[in-house]
Amino acid sequence: MALIVHKYGGTSMGSTERIRNVALRVAKWHRAGHRMVVVPSAMSGETNRLLGLAKELQPSSMTPESLRELDALAATGEQVSVGLLALALQAQGLQAVSYAGWQVAIETDSAYSKARIMRIDDARVRADLDAGKVVIITGFQGIDGTGNVTTLGRGGSDTSAVAVAAALKADECLIYTDVDGVYTTDPRIVPEARRLATVSFEEMLEMASMGSKVLQIRSVEFAGKYRVPLRVLSSFTPWDIPIDEESRSGTLITFEEDEKMEQAVVSGIAFNRDEAKVSVIGVPDKPGIAYQILGPVADANIDVDVIIQNVSHDGRTDFSFTVNRNDYARTLELLRTRVVPTLGANEVLGDTRICKVSIVGIGMRSHVGVASKMFRTLSEEGINIQMISTSEIKTSVVIDEKYMELAVRALHRAFDLDQPVA
Amino acid sequence: MALIVHKYGGTSMGSTERIRNVALRVAKWHRAGHRMVVVPSAMSGETNRLLGLAKELQPSSMTPESLRELDALAATGEQVSVGLLALALQAQGLQAVSYAGWQVAIETDSAYSKARIMRIDDARVRADLDAGKVVIITGFQGIDGTGNVTTLGRGGSDTSAVAVAAALKADECLIYTDVDGVYTTDPRIVPEARRLATVSFEEMLEMASMGSKVLQIRSVEFAGKYRVPLRVLSSFTPWDIPIDEESRSGTLITFEEDEKMEQAVVSGIAFNRDEAKVSVIGVPDKPGIAYQILGPVADANIDVDVIIQNVSHDGRTDFSFTVNRNDYARTLELLRTRVVPTLGANEVLGDTRICKVSIVGIGMRSHVGVASKMFRTLSEEGINIQMISTSEIKTSVVIDEKYMELAVRALHRAFDLDQPVA
Repeated sequence: MALIVHKYGGTSMGSTERIRNVALRVAKWHRAGHRMVVVPSAMSGETNRLLGLAKELQPSSMTPESLRELDALAATGEQVSVGLLALALQAQGLQAVSYAGWQVAIETDSAYSKARIMRIDDARVRADLDAGKVVIITGFQGIDGTGNVTTLGRGGSDTSAVAVAAALKADECLIYTDVDGVYTTDPRIVPEARRLATVSFEEMLEMASMGSKVLQIRSVEFAGKYRVPLRVLSSFTPWDIPIDEESRSGTLITFEEDEKMEQAVVSGIAFNRDEAKVSVIGVPDKPGIAYQILGPVADANIDVDVIIQNVSHDGRTDFSFTVNRNDYARTLELLRTRVVPTLGANEVLGDTRICKVSIVGIGMRSHVGVASKMFRTLSEEGINIQMISTSEIKTSVVIDEKYMELAVRALHRAFDLDQPVA
Repeated sequence: MALIVHKYGGTSMGSTERIRNVALRVAKWHRAGHRMVVVPSAMSGETNRLLGLAKELQPSSMTPESLRELDALAATGEQVSVGLLALALQAQGLQAVSYAGWQVAIETDSAYSKARIMRIDDARVRADLDAGKVVIITGFQGIDGTGNVTTLGRGGSDTSAVAVAAALKADECLIYTDVDGVYTTDPRIVPEARRLATVSFEEMLEMASMGSKVLQIRSVEFAGKYRVPLRVLSSFTPWDIPIDEESRSGTLITFEEDEKMEQAVVSGIAFNRDEAKVSVIGVPDKPGIAYQILGPVADANIDVDVIIQNVSHDGRTDFSFTVNRNDYARTLELLRTRVVPTLGANEVLGDTRICKVSIVGIGMRSHVGVASKMFRTLSEEGINIQMISTSEIKTSVVIDEKYMELAVRALHRAFDLDQPVA
């Protein structure tokens, strides 16, 4: 009798008929003797509907006060989902109880729209599970230290599910989604992309952060930190397939490197079109410039991804980084008004028409020449590389966004990802 | 600088455009120097939409566990409203903050779907008002002693507003609605119906309970108990009419009898089509039968309205009462399975095709012959009276529902309610 956490995405919860299917699937697991916790997202379209209403009323830029209201508003989407799913389970004859984030409580910091989970009180949930109930918990949201509703950002329900699984020391966390696992790359770009039966936690982390939108990156971090066994699988299989078949489907995120994984040098190609490039040109090359540039950016709660500082020339250097496109205008404004004047830099340049393409593979650790093979492949396709960033298990390049599909296809082929694993 | 509570109904909150109008109106009051608390309902149609989704998933009768989920689900409608209104006020340059019932907290008992407010913690609201903020609080909902979301029943936002006004000792509670005040009867039935400039608390109580759906009855009880000055007025006047004109519009519910009220014997005609009649026939006439019949009904959380016990005949009597039509089937089932067998009654009869018509007036206390004039008027129209119930300031009759409009019109004329007040 295992303790299992199921997470269902918005598409899986998109109508009462689909919610009924989720209930039938959960009931199947419960009747097989498992202790079940379910974390659903809002019904698809609901969060956008709510934020659309908000935008009609408050079109200008958001103050912290507005962000607080927006979070409370957006959080209602999941509160509807959990209530409906509880009713659907009760209609199946099960005992089911739903909780909003504040009821559990899932405690977060106060960074509205991108809050982080600090602590989960599992007492109430455990008592319900002991009483034989299915417990349903809202994804995406929590409560801060002063009783305000917070949300975790897009895809935050994944993180909620993994955090709940970690708090309860669940045996497995199953993320049901509209794809049937993690692929070598996006099959919409490369039709030959293959599903991976397993992927290492580190690879998944790089893929998630690189834009393979199967899982929110923070959910993978959480899973890694607390060693939560995590499986990504499809919610569109018939609800009544045998449990042992279902529990082997999809992609398992593993924590130990096994033989097989050593063989694949590159496991997948990730890409991200949501970033923009910002460069501060002619920065006096002296200690502390990185902090002087990125400190104000971090203070404004803007996430920075790739960071590159070129070698200096004549005592001046160029400093570049990428941010989410939504933060681009704000970042430029910030740098021009508050950073360039005090720093004595020449100017700030930026470009939103970029994309980032990465090769990811735990095997890269022990194989040389992987990055240079990537650069050669792009060169053969005539693709100019604007920025390069590397880590132990990935190499990322920033290129003109118009070459994205070409680059992904060429790399997928060059690293033999379209070939079946031996 | 007064402390004012505004309550806006679902129609007034029915679109982003209307919410913006509410914000403009509230901002006008705030800028005039008043401390403002606003209690909005869910956007019109939203509660029904949510309950409709629930019904698709849980079509059978509701368990206490299902009612808990239904309340949490329905409460999201108001949570959306408060967030949107806060954003709209912030867009006007005001400081505004919204709270769900659990955040205030508005503490209730645990009677899901018809919870009663026990206590309101006003500390957080007072601090916000002191800081110059407009405070927006969800209507319709609260939190019980163990942290579950509860709702107060249809129209519960009125009660929320009055309860908040009472807790804060507000100078006035203004209920903005889609009618411009309290009328001598429903103008849709009697076109000559007149708006009352003032109505006494006791009359309003009788009218609310009799089906004049301007205010939820519990809001009037609350207003009476805590002496909250209450005004019903239209939310469809232009938002920018002068405040002194707006604050004299609508109908004021008063607590002192003034000269004028003494003059009107009957202030209004109320009616209610939502009830059903239940009769237990051939009950042995002995002490305790009322309790034996109505005890189980009350335990099942069914509200009883008119109660009539006829004089006994041959040691047996008939016992009749009315309940809401939604509770009719459940009441009949309950009486037949659990009451009649132990009581030794003959049978249970019922009828849903009834209505209740009442004349209400504080002047009835000191005028004789008012009830008999009512009976004569109905008799002249050939309307048979099935049940009669009286109180100090009202006389109600239960008649066949097909005569309702005829009865209301005849009584409105007979008591000169279509004549302007001298």
